Amino acid sequence: MSDLLWPGDHRAGDLFTDAAVIAAMVRVEHAWLTALTTQGLADITVPDDLAALITPDDHPALAVAAESGGNPLIPLLKLLRSRLRGRNTAAAGWLHKGLTSQDVVDTALVLCLRDAVTRIRTDLRAQIGTLARLAGEHRETRMAGRTLTQHAIPITFGLKAAGWLTGVLDAREQLAAAAALPIQVGGAAGSLAAPTAVAGDPGRARALVAVTAEHLGLPLREPWHTSRAPLTRVADAFVTCTDAWGRIANDVLVGSRPEVHELIEGGAEGKGGSSAMPNKQNPVHAVLIKRAALAGPPFAALVHAGAAAAVDERPDGGWHVEWATLRTLARRTVVAGAQTAELLAGLRVDTGRMLATLHDARPDIDAEQQSISPGAPPDQPYLGATDEIIDAVLARAKETPWKLH
Amino acid sequence: MSDLLWPGDHRAGDLFTDAAVIAAMVRVEHAWLTALTTQGLADITVPDDLAALITPDDHPALAVAAESGGNPLIPLLKLLRSRLRGRNTAAAGWLHKGLTSQDVVDTALVLCLRDAVTRIRTDLRAQIGTLARLAGEHRETRMAGRTLTQHAIPITFGLKAAGWLTGVLDAREQLAAAAALPIQVGGAAGSLAAPTAVAGDPGRARALVAVTAEHLGLPLREPWHTSRAPLTRVADAFVTCTDAWGRIANDVLVGSRPEVHELIEGGAEGKGGSSAMPNKQNPVHAVLIKRAALAGPPFAALVHAGAAAAVDERPDGGWHVEWATLRTLARRTVVAGAQTAELLAGLRVDTGRMLATLHDARPDIDAEQQSISPGAPPDQPYLGATDEIIDAVLARAKETPWKLH
Amino acid sequence: MSDLLWPGDHRAGDLFTDAAVIAAMVRVEHAWLTALTTQGLADITVPDDLAALITPDDHPALAVAAESGGNPLIPLLKLLRSRLRGRNTAAAGWLHKGLTSQDVVDTALVLCLRDAVTRIRTDLRAQIGTLARLAGEHRETRMAGRTLTQHAIPITFGLKAAGWLTGVLDAREQLAAAAALPIQVGGAAGSLAAPTAVAGDPGRARALVAVTAEHLGLPLREPWHTSRAPLTRVADAFVTCTDAWGRIANDVLVGSRPEVHELIEGGAEGKGGSSAMPNKQNPVHAVLIKRAALAGPPFAALVHAGAAAAVDERPDGGWHVEWATLRTLARRTVVAGAQTAELLAGLRVDTGRMLATLHDARPDIDAEQQSISPGAPPDQPYLGATDEIIDAVLARAKETPWKLH
Amino acid sequence: MSDLLWPGDHRAGDLFTDAAVIAAMVRVEHAWLTALTTQGLADITVPDDLAALITPDDHPALAVAAESGGNPLIPLLKLLRSRLRGRNTAAAGWLHKGLTSQDVVDTALVLCLRDAVTRIRTDLRAQIGTLARLAGEHRETRMAGRTLTQHAIPITFGLKAAGWLTGVLDAREQLAAAAALPIQVGGAAGSLAAPTAVAGDPGRARALVAVTAEHLGLPLREPWHTSRAPLTRVADAFVTCTDAWGRIANDVLVGSRPEVHELIEGGAEGKGGSSAMPNKQNPVHAVLIKRAALAGPPFAALVHAGAAAAVDERPDGGWHVEWATLRTLARRTVVAGAQTAELLAGLRVDTGRMLATLHDARPDIDAEQQSISPGAPPDQPYLGATDEIIDAVLARAKETPWKLH
Repeated sequence: MSDLLWPGDHRAGDLFTDAAVIAAMVRVEHAWLTALTTQGLADITVPDDLAALITPDDHPALAVAAESGGNPLIPLLKLLRSRLRGRNTAAAGWLHKGLTSQDVVDTALVLCLRDAVTRIRTDLRAQIGTLARLAGEHRETRMAGRTLTQHAIPITFGLKAAGWLTGVLDAREQLAAAAALPIQVGGAAGSLAAPTAVAGDPGRARALVAVTAEHLGLPLREPWHTSRAPLTRVADAFVTCTDAWGRIANDVLVGSRPEVHELIEGGAEGKGGSSAMPNKQNPVHAVLIKRAALAGPPFAALVHAGAAAAVDERPDGGWHVEWATLRTLARRTVVAGAQTAELLAGLRVDTGRMLATLHDARPDIDAEQQSISPGAPPDQPYLGATDEIIDAVLARAKETPWKLH
Repeated sequence: MSDLLWPGDHRAGDLFTDAAVIAAMVRVEHAWLTALTTQGLADITVPDDLAALITPDDHPALAVAAESGGNPLIPLLKLLRSRLRGRNTAAAGWLHKGLTSQDVVDTALVLCLRDAVTRIRTDLRAQIGTLARLAGEHRETRMAGRTLTQHAIPITFGLKAAGWLTGVLDAREQLAAAAALPIQVGGAAGSLAAPTAVAGDPGRARALVAVTAEHLGLPLREPWHTSRAPLTRVADAFVTCTDAWGRIANDVLVGSRPEVHELIEGGAEGKGGSSAMPNKQNPVHAVLIKRAALAGPPFAALVHAGAAAAVDERPDGGWHVEWATLRTLARRTVVAGAQTAELLAGLRVDTGRMLATLHDARPDIDAEQQSISPGAPPDQPYLGATDEIIDAVLARAKETPWKLH
Repeated sequence: MSDLLWPGDHRAGDLFTDAAVIAAMVRVEHAWLTALTTQGLADITVPDDLAALITPDDHPALAVAAESGGNPLIPLLKLLRSRLRGRNTAAAGWLHKGLTSQDVVDTALVLCLRDAVTRIRTDLRAQIGTLARLAGEHRETRMAGRTLTQHAIPITFGLKAAGWLTGVLDAREQLAAAAALPIQVGGAAGSLAAPTAVAGDPGRARALVAVTAEHLGLPLREPWHTSRAPLTRVADAFVTCTDAWGRIANDVLVGSRPEVHELIEGGAEGKGGSSAMPNKQNPVHAVLIKRAALAGPPFAALVHAGAAAAVDERPDGGWHVEWATLRTLARRTVVAGAQTAELLAGLRVDTGRMLATLHDARPDIDAEQQSISPGAPPDQPYLGATDEIIDAVLARAKETPWKLH
Repeated sequence: MSDLLWPGDHRAGDLFTDAAVIAAMVRVEHAWLTALTTQGLADITVPDDLAALITPDDHPALAVAAESGGNPLIPLLKLLRSRLRGRNTAAAGWLHKGLTSQDVVDTALVLCLRDAVTRIRTDLRAQIGTLARLAGEHRETRMAGRTLTQHAIPITFGLKAAGWLTGVLDAREQLAAAAALPIQVGGAAGSLAAPTAVAGDPGRARALVAVTAEHLGLPLREPWHTSRAPLTRVADAFVTCTDAWGRIANDVLVGSRPEVHELIEGGAEGKGGSSAMPNKQNPVHAVLIKRAALAGPPFAALVHAGAAAAVDERPDGGWHVEWATLRTLARRTVVAGAQTAELLAGLRVDTGRMLATLHDARPDIDAEQQSISPGAPPDQPYLGATDEIIDAVLARAKETPWKLH
């Protein structure tokens, strides 16, 4: 999958594509069927190849058929049953028994979101490594600090990198807190009525859910059909990531300006080229990351708006708006994470230019220092606790906020 | 194209797909090449089959290659040139001459948006026809008017339909005002420098633009690379549409509740079914329309955020965020428009139930009337200027706000 | 009124304050009472001093009391009646007769919005005047054109100013189209039932509305309690304004950077100062305008979300969310409009620096020209149709899109 | 403070008003001055009455003066110094020494946000208590479960209340995780350069920060001028609260409809009244809570947009947009929290009506049960694991996610 109008989208690969969602829904049905069997309820042979019953050729028709019932599970289930029937009619009869559409759709969303979190986690690790290196290597690389676009006081590029790293560590923390996305099984109205009818009693119904969760590697949780904080939390965490990356991209974009030219986006042959201006080298990754940072907040807001519109035992639109919103937000976060990792890894720091600009900014840039320590010799360091701050941020980078795996 | 996670998406068909965007970009290049020829600048044979040089097999690679330069035109152009070279080397040399990527991408977006507007316009016409019929037929169909969820005073369903129609007419007006999406040709920095160098003087450069616009059937406008009101206006108009449809869907969703049951969504066999509850009939279209109404506002806000982030002679991210946002918003508006037209056409109005509810709401629902006209006989009509309002709205429905075509 | 956390808010003065909203609601009640009298229905002396019955001391209590009924008109009406009773008991009896809360609240919102539009219109006029001057004066002021943050081709500052002006003219056009905000009178459920009961027949009821509209100087419109496009349209227009101003501010912020220093925000003594850095001069207006441009889109999105949540004959929350949202958006747009007018009027253009930067950008910045016209002498103008574009934009600036007044 | 156009706003009282923000900024300056003294740097008598130097009469002028420097601390500091001078000139000299505006503004925001969190925490506790009671008392109160607006399967009201409670517990968890809002002291560019110059060395500078944080009861953190996750996290948590409350309000609004009438909002005399319809009783709190739930998401999105726009060592607009956004969001969350606590405490549950509706919904509502257990006797319970789910949610309600206090 790729999206011509979101350059870089291919970096997310198969993640959360229609095919991935269908595979995830089949996986949920398979795990449930397996649980029904291992718990001694269904005396069937669980087909190994449930996923193989659906081919890519089926996908467009499933998407079309999703409209009639309002969700993609209904036609998928119909197709699975019809294809099972004949070869394993008993399994066809037990398939989905006790579940409701929302159980399967929500748990499939969770599986796809978990894959996105895993991908982002890898890129966060790479970013943190690079940023820690930059903060360490450039502890003493002097440059002009800027506030409200104007030269303020001298800083070092290591401090700036530590500031970028702080944002990335915050994002890691939020994402780690949101990562334990739970299974959703509640039956039609969140009471486990059908699973209980199938299993015989509530305890066995809950055991079915627990076994299914274990198959899928998902934490347990009471039904959450209409309390959507697990999803808003991960959406917020995604945006906390794009905030942190956008903040870095903004500095690279300023630093790339020819008049500043302190930071230069590295690049492969041909990257950053123009259709008409042969000599131009654009900071393309920074541009595309900034784009993602602009786009993130309204998407998370929409997931919240859906959550806030929940009503009854299954919402009439608030639920449906989540799916594509989460998919797009997840893919774009993955893409921006990969681009940021690459941007940082290839970033060229022109330390000479930084020093020259700092020099040119004198004596104004020393004004604060002179007002506190009148008569301080010119070009005296004024770096405060830069070292201590960098050390603290580097120490935090070594923490492991992830509870899972 | 279809989107499993946005049921109904297939209704938008090929509109604004990657293929459609590529075709539109090729069309812009073709129109420019033709203008270069008809204006006597290029002495070449314009290839008829420029579009045929690109096949669906190329699309994924183009999407991938779009990242390197940050926009999809750069790799498309490279591919077109390489495929032209050899068979029509002269044309390959003139292709894109004088243009910048943004000229082609923006004008292609405009072409795709125009197609969306055309589709929506058709569905608006159908909706207006149905609503005018409902308002006329149900002028005297008595029902309970509701405010803040509570019974307020008696109204007629015709008045309600006229209210729905008012929203749709407002949407039509906004869309008509936004429909004249202009061509964008300005060259690298909006000065027509390259077209002028190619054409020889400014007058001939502007003539090139005018001829290209005429080929494409687009209005002229001075370059607007960084003044994006033409795009925010159409995005706002799309959301004005989904607002109006969402408002209708909300009433249908309330009216469909079993306890109210005044409005019933019609449907084909199987529509509105459930994966586990055989007897259930869900108001699926209303649900999906409400979903679209929730999703619209943040997308238009994002187009505005991109516009507000414009800087320099081409923005560093604000531009890039528009493309996919407009595509998704346009497709979803088309889908919701078709669903609303179908919902309205099939809507079943239970006039008996309306009357029964009104009856049950007495005497409280007559309290306002009694307070103004104490002693009015019970069940006295209290319909005010319902007829006049319906007539006025029906008259407005006959206006033609569209300036084009 | 002023808002410590939105510096510059005082520029909006009394506009749309609680006091202004209360005054507007009283004005609507007064106009209705007058209409009842002039149309021969109420045989009373309309009190001249209805507004004087409410003093600033009453405002806090009214705000508190607004919660009980969910809107501010209910306690205001109660207070007005109690104060009228005794001195003009007949008028107290006729007050509000036939109206519903929403009629008064909506029409009062419209009056306040109209005041905001008038204020913005004045500032747009000033901005247009200054921008037209800048575009004219700097037709030939050479500078580097920049795309994606990098030097692209030479332009003139006049062209840039014409681009800024284009955005402002677009905003003027949108605001003009949205300016004809209509009266809202429909009674409890939009049928004019109560006005008709009061007036005797529908024709007289509609005449009452027409006379009231005339008193208030507002266009007529059929009731629009649940079709909110008049409000979303003006909200969208406000954001189209802040988009255009934000785009200007972004260029000023880049231009103000010490490394660029082509554009310098003018300022009074002390403006742009820092609490700790004595020599610093910050582009404060540009910063505050950019802030407003960030804030606009989500507010308009919220007005749309309210419109899309409309249901029944008066919405259960969708209506209520509009009031404060529109107020804040209107005041901030007024503030940003005044700041932009001032920013532009005081903007200092360093033409020498522009030329120097252009010189330093050679020969790369001439690459496009050289590729089209190989061997063109260095430093040859490459301004394309700059003059014609500026002329066209200046001509557009002289149009008058306003239909009213 | 109160806001006529946000009925209920007075419930937030003085929280985060201009006066509260000014007091918080003075408190930060006082704590810093105290730290300078206790750490042996300033040999002064710290004035006890720093706050008393500023009176409410000063507030409007401070708000006006905030525009010139772009933030409210600059004029406040000037005023404090001028008022101190003469009575305690030494203290005037030491005031703010080493700090930057952003240190004080950010830490003051944090203090105001902490107050909001404390208020919300109290209301969450009340809500949790009421919901736990409702879930327990109504374990066996049978009613119709509804999905996509239609009757689905029987549930109990206790299960519904447990679902509401789940959302509130999720909100509590998010808020608890966001509650540890840290101090911000970093000096002009986040390096503690000025504090270090004042204190003599980095260690003493950091000690100054630590002592100040302790005075204010705030956690420590490395400077976060441009990494704003502490603020986005609390904004997201606020919206997670309004999501949960909106979800409850939506059910109350449906339940309050006369045709359903299962849930009735309690109320004091006069609450929910209408300006024209004497017998009407509107679910006003639910309406106002739904309003807040609509408004929350775009505000949090705006805090994220500000964070994503961060650049340099202090952002040029991204910072400024946070202040008023956080204030409004915090106050509204406090208001909605209080309204929800009251709504729940007064909620009347019509168990007879619930049962009657369930009865009327038969046999369709039993269809799922019949399809799983064909021939199950009619009116057989079908409550699944309702008891176990309620127990699990009640157990979770007893957890204490708050780490502080």
